Amino acid sequence: MDPISDPISLDKALSSFTDLWSPRIVTAVNDYDVRVAKVEGEHVWHVHDHTDEFFLVLEGELHIALREKKGETDGERTVVLPKGSVFTVPRGTEHKPYAPSTAAILVFEPTGTLSVGDRHDDVPDHVDVTPGHMLRP
Amino acid sequence: MDPISDPISLDKALSSFTDLWSPRIVTAVNDYDVRVAKVEGEHVWHVHDHTDEFFLVLEGELHIALREKKGETDGERTVVLPKGSVFTVPRGTEHKPYAPSTAAILVFEPTGTLSVGDRHDDVPDHVDVTPGHMLRP
Repeated sequence: MDPISDPISLDKALSSFTDLWSPRIVTAVNDYDVRVAKVEGEHVWHVHDHTDEFFLVLEGELHIALREKKGETDGERTVVLPKGSVFTVPRGTEHKPYAPSTAAILVFEPTGTLSVGDRHDDVPDHVDVTPGHMLRP
Repeated sequence: MDPISDPISLDKALSSFTDLWSPRIVTAVNDYDVRVAKVEGEHVWHVHDHTDEFFLVLEGELHIALREKKGETDGERTVVLPKGSVFTVPRGTEHKPYAPSTAAILVFEPTGTLSVGDRHDDVPDHVDVTPGHMLRP
């Protein structure tokens, strides 16, 4: 099977690795990548200054804490994405994904976008700093 | 609920309309749209000259007939996407989606991309010519 020109099962893609917070690139769309990741526990607060970031929850539940700038009343809130829901984090918004138990997500963002953004807190060992790994090395 | 700043359930989005081959925009990512559509039967042969087109099958099964240019041996083949699989149709490749029974798909493509591409066969009444409708008018 040619990974570029044949359909890819997301379940198969997800079963091909076990690392958490370490996205795999399943396909590209122009200069964007479609990535899948297994996640559990906390990511770090980070921000993408120049791009929105799209999340689709494939399995489990994802929480995304957001520090939003709304004029004079900056606020922090958390959105909860059950399986089968989508959310776009706007560029410039600090956010921290969190999964209470193992979950699987699909993200869509420009090729090269780092998993920890342009600015971020200290990165713990369990979070991979990467623009995504190829699905089949 | 603010449709822009709150998560959206794809199931709820899909249950909010019944039209076939008539995509709804669920969110935007930079200058790209994420659209969902209900599909059944045949779309038309068409081509997007300037953009790849990403498909994720949410329910059912999607077939995509492709007319690929591979040097001197142009060929036609059909890829089959079961639920939970993804495929990107490269720019410039003529294609015709087909669903043997009702299916639901998610597509990513640049905002404004027409459902029938830049060049296409005659469009039958059951196919909507649109860059996508807003989910909540």
